[in-house]
Amino acid sequence: MLNTPIRSVEWSNDHITLLDQRLLPSQTEFITLTAIEDVWEAIFELKVRGAPAIGITAAYGLALWAQQSQHDHFNEFCEDLKKQAAYLETSRPTAVNLFWAIKRILSVVERVSTIKKAKEAILDKANVIAKEDEDVCRSIGEHAINLFQDGDTLLTHCNAGGIATARYGTALAPFYIAKERGIHLKAFASETRPVLQGARLTAWELQQLGIDVTLITDNMVAHTIKTKGINAIIVGADRIAANGDTANKIGTYGLALLAKALQIPFYVAAPLSTIDLATSSGEDIEIEERHADEIRKLNGQLVTTADMKVFNPAFDVTPAELITGIITERGIVSGDYKTKLEGLFI
Amino acid sequence: MLNTPIRSVEWSNDHITLLDQRLLPSQTEFITLTAIEDVWEAIFELKVRGAPAIGITAAYGLALWAQQSQHDHFNEFCEDLKKQAAYLETSRPTAVNLFWAIKRILSVVERVSTIKKAKEAILDKANVIAKEDEDVCRSIGEHAINLFQDGDTLLTHCNAGGIATARYGTALAPFYIAKERGIHLKAFASETRPVLQGARLTAWELQQLGIDVTLITDNMVAHTIKTKGINAIIVGADRIAANGDTANKIGTYGLALLAKALQIPFYVAAPLSTIDLATSSGEDIEIEERHADEIRKLNGQLVTTADMKVFNPAFDVTPAELITGIITERGIVSGDYKTKLEGLFI
Repeated sequence: MLNTPIRSVEWSNDHITLLDQRLLPSQTEFITLTAIEDVWEAIFELKVRGAPAIGITAAYGLALWAQQSQHDHFNEFCEDLKKQAAYLETSRPTAVNLFWAIKRILSVVERVSTIKKAKEAILDKANVIAKEDEDVCRSIGEHAINLFQDGDTLLTHCNAGGIATARYGTALAPFYIAKERGIHLKAFASETRPVLQGARLTAWELQQLGIDVTLITDNMVAHTIKTKGINAIIVGADRIAANGDTANKIGTYGLALLAKALQIPFYVAAPLSTIDLATSSGEDIEIEERHADEIRKLNGQLVTTADMKVFNPAFDVTPAELITGIITERGIVSGDYKTKLEGLFI
Repeated sequence: MLNTPIRSVEWSNDHITLLDQRLLPSQTEFITLTAIEDVWEAIFELKVRGAPAIGITAAYGLALWAQQSQHDHFNEFCEDLKKQAAYLETSRPTAVNLFWAIKRILSVVERVSTIKKAKEAILDKANVIAKEDEDVCRSIGEHAINLFQDGDTLLTHCNAGGIATARYGTALAPFYIAKERGIHLKAFASETRPVLQGARLTAWELQQLGIDVTLITDNMVAHTIKTKGINAIIVGADRIAANGDTANKIGTYGLALLAKALQIPFYVAAPLSTIDLATSSGEDIEIEERHADEIRKLNGQLVTTADMKVFNPAFDVTPAELITGIITERGIVSGDYKTKLEGLFI
């Protein structure tokens, strides 16, 4: 058992140590990345997942390249850095955080004029990106913990956990902060079909830290709330619209409706970077549909006929009125989300 | 594609033809049972499932034995019949319908005095048991169909289908009756973790009959109701208490809460044999918990740590006030279930 939340990405002098999330939970294997090609492959092959964790890995990937660089001329170093950045961007072209982190790294060399200073500045910025994310998650956890009492049981969905971020996670952050403070929070994790992030990641992550966690299938939530004394539901978010409508892993909307029907609070924990003021409401959020075989097959084996018609939305949208509170690094907002979410950015 | 609902159990002159439900949906294999030992094994090994289908199979099993019997003396025949009945009862000691069907078969020999007449009477009674179940299911479907309109889309859970009964099923009966009458009903089937009866059985069964069916995971229900225009939810029942509280496959209670929240009707389709007037309310129904490995493993492979704590209730109880109507072979009841359910038996 660990005493501190796992860091899924970590810089160690001259290499990156990365948790291979594809192998979880049967193997907890940390791999060593010693070249930028390793970093590209780790992102491409989904060894690292979670938007913040991907951004941090990419930033350290450029720091790794810079440290190993043999250039003698600053201009050549800068040109090559841009090429390496463009190369890393091809590892997962849909990951917004990847581009955001790479852009921040590129900007630091504009303020220096020697290779030595550039190398230092790049590593410093990568550390800042990781540290900022850790601070954000920790703040979310510290705000969230005020909502709960010693002995409470929270239900969570999918994995908004420490391994998807620098540390602590978002929806799982209060569990870690509670543990530090000697407050006992128990967890129920819904398995989160079809990809099973709840079973494979959340249940494992909480168990590693010695937190009392029980796994259920997604259809057991109502019965579990009724019979096991669940005090609240807490989930992460993929995107929060200006009015508070929240897109998150499929199943979240149903959980919010069940929470309301069974009169328990429903919380969303997410950093400000998730709040998209340019999206006015959930109606403007397009829901991606994923491949039918995710539902037709289990572990590669068909459980239906091969041509079974399937509806496989990746996300759903929870209307703001079902959300008791949105927990951010700048505090908890509730009620008039339109005004209050905007206010967080001032 | 078939033109008529599959009969999962059928008598054919000198043998029983049985659909091996364990192989579905990858193989649709009908096996031939030619001795009572085959029947015992089919029930024991779960080749047949669904309470009515098990009862029918056992009844035909005794008819099969009787037909093959070489006894010369009526008393010896009767003694041996009782032994065979006791033997069949050991195939699944928890199946109430198995005992009920066997008891009905045993009772017929009390009214005859020759082996020849006994053999005829036993086969006749087995046919009656099958025919009665088919008629019950058909009546449920005929009552249910009045609730829906051409073009409606219904969501169902688990498998309350034709293969679990003599024919037609309960919750799936309206789909078959609609098809006979040229009325188009579309279906969404929730996969029904952990055992996946929705994916493996219901989706397959409806697809075989050419009914437009779409499979979803259990956590997609709320989003599907909201975006796909689901007109109603219809499920079967394991036990209905005198006040209308209904025990059914885990997940049913959550569906009923979502139906209410999203303002669509929620129906239970079940024969009178499911209504237990001796159970006053759902609070008196004990919920069986099944083995943790059903959730920990998929296709025999662990998806969590081997010692993950799991909560695995097999059923849940839906309070009567969430049920829009209970559809039985004697009509649809709603509202004051306590009075009206009792009235069905008068």
